[in-house]
Amino acid sequence: MKPGQFLTVEGGEGVGKSTNLDFIAKTLRAQGIDLVVTREPGGTPLAEALRALLISDSEDPPCPNAELLMIFAARAQHLSTVIEPALKAGRWVLCDRFTDATFAYQGAGRGIEWSSIETLENLIQGDRRPDLTLLLDMEPAIGMDRAGSRGALDRFEREALPFFDRVRRGYKTRAAQAPHRYRVIDASQSIDAVQRDIARVLAELFNG
Amino acid sequence: MKPGQFLTVEGGEGVGKSTNLDFIAKTLRAQGIDLVVTREPGGTPLAEALRALLISDSEDPPCPNAELLMIFAARAQHLSTVIEPALKAGRWVLCDRFTDATFAYQGAGRGIEWSSIETLENLIQGDRRPDLTLLLDMEPAIGMDRAGSRGALDRFEREALPFFDRVRRGYKTRAAQAPHRYRVIDASQSIDAVQRDIARVLAELFNG
Repeated sequence: MKPGQFLTVEGGEGVGKSTNLDFIAKTLRAQGIDLVVTREPGGTPLAEALRALLISDSEDPPCPNAELLMIFAARAQHLSTVIEPALKAGRWVLCDRFTDATFAYQGAGRGIEWSSIETLENLIQGDRRPDLTLLLDMEPAIGMDRAGSRGALDRFEREALPFFDRVRRGYKTRAAQAPHRYRVIDASQSIDAVQRDIARVLAELFNG
Repeated sequence: MKPGQFLTVEGGEGVGKSTNLDFIAKTLRAQGIDLVVTREPGGTPLAEALRALLISDSEDPPCPNAELLMIFAARAQHLSTVIEPALKAGRWVLCDRFTDATFAYQGAGRGIEWSSIETLENLIQGDRRPDLTLLLDMEPAIGMDRAGSRGALDRFEREALPFFDRVRRGYKTRAAQAPHRYRVIDASQSIDAVQRDIARVLAELFNG
């Protein structure tokens, strides 16, 4: 059996990840692809419990290293119980954020060395990397306005603009380092234009 | 100010850790030592929440790597918010289990490579290691009888004898590798004899 493809969607706050994930899932399923749609941190009961601890307000907010390790703990569980079994069974996996987000948020955002994140990535993932990553890229100030209009913000969403500027630069550096698997989409365009760009990337995937 | 001493107590199930931790704390406080008594995994609200996820029964029990990372996440939080501030303020810290338990339980017990645990130890702890570790050593079969008579068992306590045999061998290997900081106590003796041995180790500590 041909192993499934592992696709991830990345981007900062308010870039339109949810809407575009739905669009990608519909497009893939219309091609007859057996697809698992999931997210990080999360995707299993344990990983979702870790997510709740990560994003909630607390008298004891995680220090940067605790945050990093909780994210990789959730990822280890997600990989072993959801992602790897699906890919091995020939299903495709579409994941809302993955390790690139850790480089962007905990690395560029919080200041953790990328070499530490790479160490954990190798320890937990072995050779597993996404086959294709769509980065929805936008000026953070625009995205923050959009995210803010949705209501109560979580512990990450409440960060200030300079944090999200660093996150964006982190994502763009990652994209530049792995051009073979990264496709950067200008998410500041109209939704129609964004989805036209996404459809083009997916067509490239089907045809090659 | 003289930095505080970092003491840990290790051992398998039913070796008498709680009773002997109380004895050690009383002995140290009787010497006028300003002591923080804490435990792992745990010791902070976040770390205790992680402990609850680690030991509870669940439809989605942590895979070995998730377990390992949750333990180190709890440890990172515990170190940054409790242990390091206390030691820097000249207080002593007495901790019920620390990283030696990770080598014994997740390493020897679950089969995770010690080199992976060492990688995380260096990443999270830097140079921080216990100044003195008391290993309460006992035949696992005896300890399991004792632990079992206390009532409901958690996810770790329910492991079978071969697991605890591996844990014990793991602890003994650690002790052999770091004789300068390890003191092995025969916990199968009468409580009086065990505490006489512990008192002797602590006296050694006060006298230099």
